[in-house]
Amino acid sequence: MRLTNLFTKTSKTAPADEVAKNAQLLIRAGFIHKEMAGVYTYLPLGKIVLDKIINIIREEMNAVGGSEISLTALQQKDVWEATGRWDDKVMDVWFKTRLASGSELGLAPTHEEPLTQLMKSHIQSYKDLPVYPYQFQIKFRNELRSKSGLMRGREFWMKDLYSFSRTQAEHDAFYEKITAAYLRVYDRLGLGEWTYKTFASGGSFAPYSHEFQTLSPVGEDKIYIHEGKRIAINEEVYNDEVLADLGIARDELKEAMAVEVGNIFTLGTKFSEPLGLTFTDEDGSVKPVIMGSYGIGPSRVMGLIAEHFADDKGLVWPESVAPAKVYLVRIGDQAAITHADELYGELGEKNIETLYDDRDVRPGQKFADSELFGIPYRVTVSDRLLASNQYELTVRKTGETSLLTREQLLAKLS
Amino acid sequence: MRLTNLFTKTSKTAPADEVAKNAQLLIRAGFIHKEMAGVYTYLPLGKIVLDKIINIIREEMNAVGGSEISLTALQQKDVWEATGRWDDKVMDVWFKTRLASGSELGLAPTHEEPLTQLMKSHIQSYKDLPVYPYQFQIKFRNELRSKSGLMRGREFWMKDLYSFSRTQAEHDAFYEKITAAYLRVYDRLGLGEWTYKTFASGGSFAPYSHEFQTLSPVGEDKIYIHEGKRIAINEEVYNDEVLADLGIARDELKEAMAVEVGNIFTLGTKFSEPLGLTFTDEDGSVKPVIMGSYGIGPSRVMGLIAEHFADDKGLVWPESVAPAKVYLVRIGDQAAITHADELYGELGEKNIETLYDDRDVRPGQKFADSELFGIPYRVTVSDRLLASNQYELTVRKTGETSLLTREQLLAKLS
Repeated sequence: MRLTNLFTKTSKTAPADEVAKNAQLLIRAGFIHKEMAGVYTYLPLGKIVLDKIINIIREEMNAVGGSEISLTALQQKDVWEATGRWDDKVMDVWFKTRLASGSELGLAPTHEEPLTQLMKSHIQSYKDLPVYPYQFQIKFRNELRSKSGLMRGREFWMKDLYSFSRTQAEHDAFYEKITAAYLRVYDRLGLGEWTYKTFASGGSFAPYSHEFQTLSPVGEDKIYIHEGKRIAINEEVYNDEVLADLGIARDELKEAMAVEVGNIFTLGTKFSEPLGLTFTDEDGSVKPVIMGSYGIGPSRVMGLIAEHFADDKGLVWPESVAPAKVYLVRIGDQAAITHADELYGELGEKNIETLYDDRDVRPGQKFADSELFGIPYRVTVSDRLLASNQYELTVRKTGETSLLTREQLLAKLS
Repeated sequence: MRLTNLFTKTSKTAPADEVAKNAQLLIRAGFIHKEMAGVYTYLPLGKIVLDKIINIIREEMNAVGGSEISLTALQQKDVWEATGRWDDKVMDVWFKTRLASGSELGLAPTHEEPLTQLMKSHIQSYKDLPVYPYQFQIKFRNELRSKSGLMRGREFWMKDLYSFSRTQAEHDAFYEKITAAYLRVYDRLGLGEWTYKTFASGGSFAPYSHEFQTLSPVGEDKIYIHEGKRIAINEEVYNDEVLADLGIARDELKEAMAVEVGNIFTLGTKFSEPLGLTFTDEDGSVKPVIMGSYGIGPSRVMGLIAEHFADDKGLVWPESVAPAKVYLVRIGDQAAITHADELYGELGEKNIETLYDDRDVRPGQKFADSELFGIPYRVTVSDRLLASNQYELTVRKTGETSLLTREQLLAKLS
């Protein structure tokens, strides 16, 4: 993309009421726009990052047998009353609204109820199990406070997958399989090194649920890490009984603050029983379906990645989710323009995503914006460098700079 | 996709309260699920169709210089009060809700106001114009009645592009360009033959707006078609003055009912003036930005395509938006299984999207489902046909059936 075709402008300041570093930087870079606390518009470069995160998650969910669907935001109350979650005192993050006819509706903060209800049309026999529908959908949560930028949204993107299984054993096997898929997602997002499968409270149907927690000084969760086992324990279940169960001694653990970037739950029959989602087993008996739910918030993950890798110059994206791999800076007149245009064309032919700074602005602003944007590689084409047939390549993460011939440059970027 | 991996089931009946043919068929085929009137979940095959429609529109919007973004559903009232559209009497389709703190919010039925406000951060100079941001977003409209299935949603997908131009001439040139892009969209969706650029009322800033109307007996709009010019006039502006302006005589026109599948408006300074979106022109003068808006509802278009092409056996998708190109029916035992598995693999290698009916059900059900699903080509592999080295190919639209060798079949489908 040529920057002259990008309508967003960078800024030296973020809105005064924005206290989260991730949102401050993303707004300054023109990736997002703040509509209100916890509610952000995605501008062109932000949309590309969000879509790349979503696609990585999608690939891993498809790989474990997921079927993509898209549920609705608007919710009727009957199905939520059946599970007791319509009440604002039970589910305290509802946005409620009304149809013109007067009936009360809600905006889905999660989708267990409507999906369980829907599956009654599609699950009758043990032959119909297991199934793993999932979606990327905008969720609405009426949070009292929302000061963490993209990391705690009132309107945000969520991937939620739900498993419908015949037996506990079948459920357990899938639970292990999707745990591995989640770890692959964080690896691909560049967060693997700092992300731990974390034991948390389980509810009625399992001793534990599991969170995926990424170490971060702005994290709101306290966890206890076992470096050797690459697992952690959430403060809420950090007690002698759990330590014994996991075979871990207190002194093997290190306390840390972390951000929850995903969670997986064994739901058992919590939703299938009250909503009547049953199947006929091979022996003719009628049983409730065993369920699980598996969430990752792509917008929260985007905020965390922004927050985690940023330095004092701006954003630093891992290559897998960067809006482009290369930021091409052009400095100088006709010779530089011709060479840069040509290089931009060649990078395009090689499918190397490039932001081409073809703007008529000072070199200092081009360098500053390339750093604020956080594009992994910056290539500079200038009259001075061309005189010696050289291109300057700078790695955003390390600042490492090298002078390369055109062949060396293309080999390095391919 | 193997049908044993598809969790949805077909049904002989639709919900009793569903009166629209498009929704009845899409529900029976398991493409969508009705949550309430005008609110539908997209199931796996429905999601594929919707995504294909969205991608066709996206390609054409990118081709005219569009930049994809994603605005928010939640809206604060101040920006809508500035244009007078917060009032439920002025904009009668609002869903309103409240933050936990008590502030009133709305769910965006359209996005002129928040986008105009946002663009103030990015447009200052004539050098920043023109720009064409667009999005695919879920819109919420609190319609009193919603009985047309996907064709009139209370929660539905919309593509909305907005143009921001320096001069009226620049606006007019883009308006023509996007008109051509819209016609390409309908051609690619298979609707071109029945779709007319239609003159409708213009508002304060242009003599006309334009709708794209597709002929349909279930249409709610009355239009007057000029077959020679491939244009139409909406009933609302069908008068002597307009006929004279367009150089058309009454007797050249044919009355018809149609569904509005898109509309484009010249907004002039209707939003930029009250919200203060201005730019500094080359001569130093400060002027309001000239705007336009351009909408297509992908979900409405999906409903219309379903409704328009359906026959008494079910859905009939144009190839460009069909969930797959081929429906592969397997009848028989080991030899048929081996051959069908192999053919499925080969079709996959050739990137020919195939639904493989590998289910253990009666042939009659396979044939009926292939027709209900509306997949363009059905290929049958059976023991009987294999005995003479033949495959049966049936065209969904015409019912035309031919017996082909494997080479002929693959040549035909490639």
